[in-house]
Amino acid sequence: MSHASRTAALPDFAAVLAAAARIAPHARLTPILRDEALNARSSTTLHFKAEHLQRGGAFKFRGACNAVWALPDASAARGVLTHSSGNHGAALALAAASRGIPAHVVVPEGAVRAKLALIETAGATVHRCAPTLAAREAACIELTQTLGTTLIHPYENSAVIAGQGTAALELLHVLPDLDALVVPVGGGGLAAGSALTLRAIAPRCELILAEPAGAADAAASLRSGTRVTALTPDTICDGLRATLGAPNFALLREAGAKVITVGDDETRAAMRLLWQHLKQMVEPSSATVLAAVLQQRARFAGRRVGLILSGGNVDLDAIAFCARCGTG
Amino acid sequence: MSHASRTAALPDFAAVLAAAARIAPHARLTPILRDEALNARSSTTLHFKAEHLQRGGAFKFRGACNAVWALPDASAARGVLTHSSGNHGAALALAAASRGIPAHVVVPEGAVRAKLALIETAGATVHRCAPTLAAREAACIELTQTLGTTLIHPYENSAVIAGQGTAALELLHVLPDLDALVVPVGGGGLAAGSALTLRAIAPRCELILAEPAGAADAAASLRSGTRVTALTPDTICDGLRATLGAPNFALLREAGAKVITVGDDETRAAMRLLWQHLKQMVEPSSATVLAAVLQQRARFAGRRVGLILSGGNVDLDAIAFCARCGTG
Repeated sequence: MSHASRTAALPDFAAVLAAAARIAPHARLTPILRDEALNARSSTTLHFKAEHLQRGGAFKFRGACNAVWALPDASAARGVLTHSSGNHGAALALAAASRGIPAHVVVPEGAVRAKLALIETAGATVHRCAPTLAAREAACIELTQTLGTTLIHPYENSAVIAGQGTAALELLHVLPDLDALVVPVGGGGLAAGSALTLRAIAPRCELILAEPAGAADAAASLRSGTRVTALTPDTICDGLRATLGAPNFALLREAGAKVITVGDDETRAAMRLLWQHLKQMVEPSSATVLAAVLQQRARFAGRRVGLILSGGNVDLDAIAFCARCGTG
Repeated sequence: MSHASRTAALPDFAAVLAAAARIAPHARLTPILRDEALNARSSTTLHFKAEHLQRGGAFKFRGACNAVWALPDASAARGVLTHSSGNHGAALALAAASRGIPAHVVVPEGAVRAKLALIETAGATVHRCAPTLAAREAACIELTQTLGTTLIHPYENSAVIAGQGTAALELLHVLPDLDALVVPVGGGGLAAGSALTLRAIAPRCELILAEPAGAADAAASLRSGTRVTALTPDTICDGLRATLGAPNFALLREAGAKVITVGDDETRAAMRLLWQHLKQMVEPSSATVLAAVLQQRARFAGRRVGLILSGGNVDLDAIAFCARCGTG
C-alpha cells in the first residue's frame, strides 16, 4: 500500500512518535501483565497491556492528551470540548487540566454516574442536554461559537488516533516479536493508531480487532469494503458502541486488519477470568480481546499474543455476578 | 521488652531475613500501588503492597514457601499437609510443587469452590471430610501417621510467621520512612511477621491491625492481655475468621500493636473503592485496611501509610454489587 493512497488528513507513524514524545510527561507507562492460568487456558502466551491503569482508567488519555498538547497556545487557551460521556470525556478533562486550560463536556441525561463523576472530578465543566443527537450537536455548536472552544472528536481526530497508537508502541518496544496484537474496536481510534504502529515497526505482527457481535459494524465494513453506519448497537460493551469512523476505516482497511466478533456471553466469561486470574478490574470492552482469543484457540495456539486491556471503568452498579438473583 | 522474655519457639527478625533469601527464587516481588483519588479521600499518602498479585493470589505463599523449603530433605520427601481450605491451602500446594514434593489438603465439605479449584490446579491431593473440627483432626492425624507428612499450620508455624514478615520487609525496603503500617489480622501470621520486621528496621513505624468487628478476638485479646478464643466469627472476610494464634498473640502483644475494628459495611465500601480506583480485584479481607484508615481519618491525616492488600481470591459467586436485587 503506497503512502500516496492516503489522504492528507490521515495520521502516519511519525505522528505516533510525535505523540509519544508529547504525552510522555503526562501519561503513565502502563505495565504488561501475564498469568500462567490464562496462558494454560488459551495455549498461548498472553501479554496484556494494562491501559485500565492509564490515567482516567482507559487508553483514551493518550489520544486526548496528544490532541490537547498539539493545539497552538491561542486556541488552547479557549479550551476544548467533547460530547463523549464515556472514557474520552474524562480523558479530555484530565488532559485539559494537565495543560491548565478549560474543558467542556456535553453530557446527555442518563449517562453513567461513575463516568460523569470522573469528568467532574477532573475539573471539566459539564453541560447537560437531552439524550438526543440533535440536542447534543446543538449544545456543541453553541459552545464552539460562544466560547471558541475546539471540538476534539473521540476517535476521528488525527491527533487522537496518533495518541492511541502509543499503547502498541510501548508494548512492541518491550516485546518486538509479537505474532499478533488483539485490540478492541468501537469507533476505531485505538485500532487505527495500533495499525499505524504495527505497520511501521512490526509488519509481520497480525492486527486483530475484537468487536462485540451486537455492534459489528467494523466487521461488516471491512468485509464489504464500504463503511457501514446504519447498525444500532446492542452490547454490554459500553465503550464499543460507536460507529467506526471514516479515517479509522481507511487506516484499518489499508492495514488489512482482521475482525473477530464475540458475543456478550463470551465477553462476560472473559471478564470474569480477568477478574479472577489477573486480579484486574477491567470493563467489558477490555474483555473482548481475551474472548476473541478463547473463541479461536487454534488460530492463536503457540503464538506470542499481545492484548490491549482498554479500560477499567466498570459500572459497579450495573455489572454483577449475583448468586442471589442470577444477574451476570 | 527484652529478648529474654520470648520463648524459644517464637521466630525473630533473623528468621524473616532467612525467609526472604529462601523464598526469593519462588515468590513474586509484588508491586506497590498508589492512587490519587484514594489519597485525596483519606487525606494521607497510601502505599498499597499488592499481595493479591502474589503467587496463589495471596501473601500466604510467602509463609508456606518458607516452611516448605526450610524442611530437611528426608521429611520434605514425605510431603506436607494442611487442613486450610482457604488461601493457605492453595499456597502450600504451590509451595510443595515448587520443591517437587507431595501436598495434602484436608478440605471440609462446603468449602468455597474457587479456592478448592486453586488447590487442585496446583497439584495437591485433596482429602474431603465432614465439616466438623473432629473430622478434620482425625483426617490430619491419619495422614500424618500413615504417610509421615509434616503438618504446616496456617499461622502458628514459626517458619510461616517469618515468611509472612517478608511482605513488610519488601515494602519498607522501598519506603523506609513509613509512619504507619496497616495489615489485616485473622490468625495473625501476617500481623506477627510484620511486627518482627517493623521492630527491627522501622521501630518508629506504628503497627496497626485491621480486624472485622464480627471476628474481633485480636482486639479483645490485646485489650485484656489474655488470648480470647471463644468468639464465633461472623464476617464477610472469609480470610479473617481464624482465632489469633498463641505465638502470634505473644509477638503482637510484645510489639504493642493497635487494633482498629471495622464493620462489614465499611469493608464492603472500601472494597468497592479499591475495585473502582485502584482497579484491583481484592477480596474483603484486603479491604479492611483501607476501611480502617477511612474510619479514623484524623489519626492518619498527613502521614505516610503502608497497607498490605492481603489477597485477591474473591468468591465471584458470592460477592456482588447487584442493582437488580440489591445484594452488595
